[in-house]
Amino acid sequence: MSQDDNKQRKHVVIIGAGFGGVKAARSLANENVDITIVDRNNFHLFQPLLYQVSTAILAEAEIAYPVRAFFQKNNNVEFFLGEVIDFDLGAKKIITDHGPVFYDYLLIAAGSMTNYFGMDTLEKHCMGMKTLEESVRIRNHILNIFEEANKEEDSQKRKQLLTFICVGGGPTGIEEAGSLSELIYHVMAKEYHNLDFSQVDIKLIEATDKVLPMMPDNLREETIHVLQRKKVDVRLNSQVLEYDGQKLTLKNGEVIPTQTVIWAAGVKAVPIVAKLGEDLDRSGRVVVQKTLQLIHHPEVFAIGDNACFMQDGSPLPTIAPVATQAALLTAGNIMKLIRGETVLDEFSYKDVGSMATIGRGDAVMFKGTWQMKGFFAWCAWMVVHLMRLAGTHTNITVALKWMWNFFSGTRLGRIITKE
Amino acid sequence: MSQDDNKQRKHVVIIGAGFGGVKAARSLANENVDITIVDRNNFHLFQPLLYQVSTAILAEAEIAYPVRAFFQKNNNVEFFLGEVIDFDLGAKKIITDHGPVFYDYLLIAAGSMTNYFGMDTLEKHCMGMKTLEESVRIRNHILNIFEEANKEEDSQKRKQLLTFICVGGGPTGIEEAGSLSELIYHVMAKEYHNLDFSQVDIKLIEATDKVLPMMPDNLREETIHVLQRKKVDVRLNSQVLEYDGQKLTLKNGEVIPTQTVIWAAGVKAVPIVAKLGEDLDRSGRVVVQKTLQLIHHPEVFAIGDNACFMQDGSPLPTIAPVATQAALLTAGNIMKLIRGETVLDEFSYKDVGSMATIGRGDAVMFKGTWQMKGFFAWCAWMVVHLMRLAGTHTNITVALKWMWNFFSGTRLGRIITKE
Repeated sequence: MSQDDNKQRKHVVIIGAGFGGVKAARSLANENVDITIVDRNNFHLFQPLLYQVSTAILAEAEIAYPVRAFFQKNNNVEFFLGEVIDFDLGAKKIITDHGPVFYDYLLIAAGSMTNYFGMDTLEKHCMGMKTLEESVRIRNHILNIFEEANKEEDSQKRKQLLTFICVGGGPTGIEEAGSLSELIYHVMAKEYHNLDFSQVDIKLIEATDKVLPMMPDNLREETIHVLQRKKVDVRLNSQVLEYDGQKLTLKNGEVIPTQTVIWAAGVKAVPIVAKLGEDLDRSGRVVVQKTLQLIHHPEVFAIGDNACFMQDGSPLPTIAPVATQAALLTAGNIMKLIRGETVLDEFSYKDVGSMATIGRGDAVMFKGTWQMKGFFAWCAWMVVHLMRLAGTHTNITVALKWMWNFFSGTRLGRIITKE
Repeated sequence: MSQDDNKQRKHVVIIGAGFGGVKAARSLANENVDITIVDRNNFHLFQPLLYQVSTAILAEAEIAYPVRAFFQKNNNVEFFLGEVIDFDLGAKKIITDHGPVFYDYLLIAAGSMTNYFGMDTLEKHCMGMKTLEESVRIRNHILNIFEEANKEEDSQKRKQLLTFICVGGGPTGIEEAGSLSELIYHVMAKEYHNLDFSQVDIKLIEATDKVLPMMPDNLREETIHVLQRKKVDVRLNSQVLEYDGQKLTLKNGEVIPTQTVIWAAGVKAVPIVAKLGEDLDRSGRVVVQKTLQLIHHPEVFAIGDNACFMQDGSPLPTIAPVATQAALLTAGNIMKLIRGETVLDEFSYKDVGSMATIGRGDAVMFKGTWQMKGFFAWCAWMVVHLMRLAGTHTNITVALKWMWNFFSGTRLGRIITKE
């Protein structure tokens, strides 16, 4: 490539190595552009399986894939480890904790974080589950709690230690509660020979009158029944109010002594999005044009959890397929801009349906009018997730672990690491 | 079992869930005794493979096995998570950070830690590799260093970042240096498209005139040649003197700018052994009788890295087979004491030989007059380590990873975790 070519080559900067960011970079990698992915972690995180790390089914490295490993054969793709702290959209640069990065086109795909809706005591004492560190923290916490409970001679204190609360009836809360129940009743129960497991109490607390709001009634009922069979106490229409690390207070006045509250009740865009200086929605997502460009900066795009995109009167859900579909459209639109075209493609999300595991060998799936539940839904869930998980070797290892877990219930990831 | 039986049952406390502690507990588990294993970690650590975690071949959970998982079927084996802080041998109790634990018979099998031989600046700035945290720290450090070097515009500073020092020519230092070389030249070199890898400098520094002192001359020479082919600069007769985190000073006055010094030059018994109040050797190990009992407390045994046991005029090496052979003998001796026998068995270590990998598909093995090197030695090394690694599922996963690594060089564990 000549010096001239290099001078003309445009530089696309992508903030975030999540589903959207990596998809966009892979799509642009074969074009005549330079790409830099900026992320504060050196890995792409497969967030839908965080609950399996938090309940000791999978290891960290199985859901975290080094970003650079995607782009071994793409010399035009660079990775920049750093945290974005501000923008200078006028000068076309982002400011990171490792210095500035200049761009010609910018893609905001930095994802979301746990949303405590302004409730400070909850934010301080609950455990979120949006990052790898958070899920490892949950794993360490639960394993430590059992060691403590095993030594505790005061029955009331032991009961408090053995009370586990999951807040939020979406897929994350459901999957966490189901997997936690299996960890405790199928694995821990075999290994704590002197602990009274009748004191264990797992509660799933949901503020509205339904779990899995995207699913039809019968699948929602099925989900609740399966959780109840797993001894999970499902509480609908229950709002949490305060938590001091020892006692969780519900809005109806009920007080639950517990040292474990896992918060899966909502997400919001990462705070850096607010620094774009554009209009935001209630979840901190930036309002974008139909082409996914910012209103005032057409060279800047936002996708996935960072974009407020209205379709059929409501904002799109914060799920991976929304991000990846938008990433492909954005990559195309950026190339159109580079080629000097003025008419860009407009985004329209194609529903791929939704699914959730509700335990070992059990899942629910729904798309349009079609639905499936039970063992075959779980098999389909496995195939879909394995296909999306990065790295052939990881696929094999994870498939093996799932098979092993299915037949023997074994969870060997139960190690407490120092934090 | 009647109440009387329970009253008569003796309580054996084992400090440490390493090779010796777990072996002793498994051996005693089928006897009519109660056993409590005390460890500050909830897992048994397979220390010989720590170097593979530190160089991103294996994940933490693959070399760390939950202690309780060994004893699912043994109701008489309890686990106690806690750190031993003192002894009251007169009252037959140990003091932990979670309260006292009483025993009838005590086995000290708490292992060893990195020995900096009193050199403070080295202890402060070098990275040891005896614990899981230490090996994860090395992994994170090396991955971070490459991200920093990739951003560094000053060539001298970049050269400093890309200089990696391993101190100690024993199996650990050799394996670490070889594996680090492969990680850098076979994996990282593919992914840092703009980094000058000719600036990378890996040095192995050994104070004496030989690496692998337990091996015959020809295998030592072979080891050095293989490391040199991997671009490791092997420095014999070189002693390190000081390290301030930026510059390593050798005894001959040479100063090496580096931010990475991995210390594998020696171990000593964990400090708690000194609180037994018995005679210790230079490495902090307690002097024991031929029966592995303490001199003044015949109800207390010490094995493995915690026992100073002279055989043929020299102390036994700090390797797993010494600990496991001693564990079996001790379990037998404890049962003899319980049965009221007065003549106990005396320990004698049966040499099982020694081995070290010196890279992907290459190893050296030696026992008595028999020796092997190269690919078949590596295969034998794999089989031996897989057999000793706990958990069938772990064996399969690790075997797969090694095969995958052998054929493709892939190392997917390259994730930087927050500490």
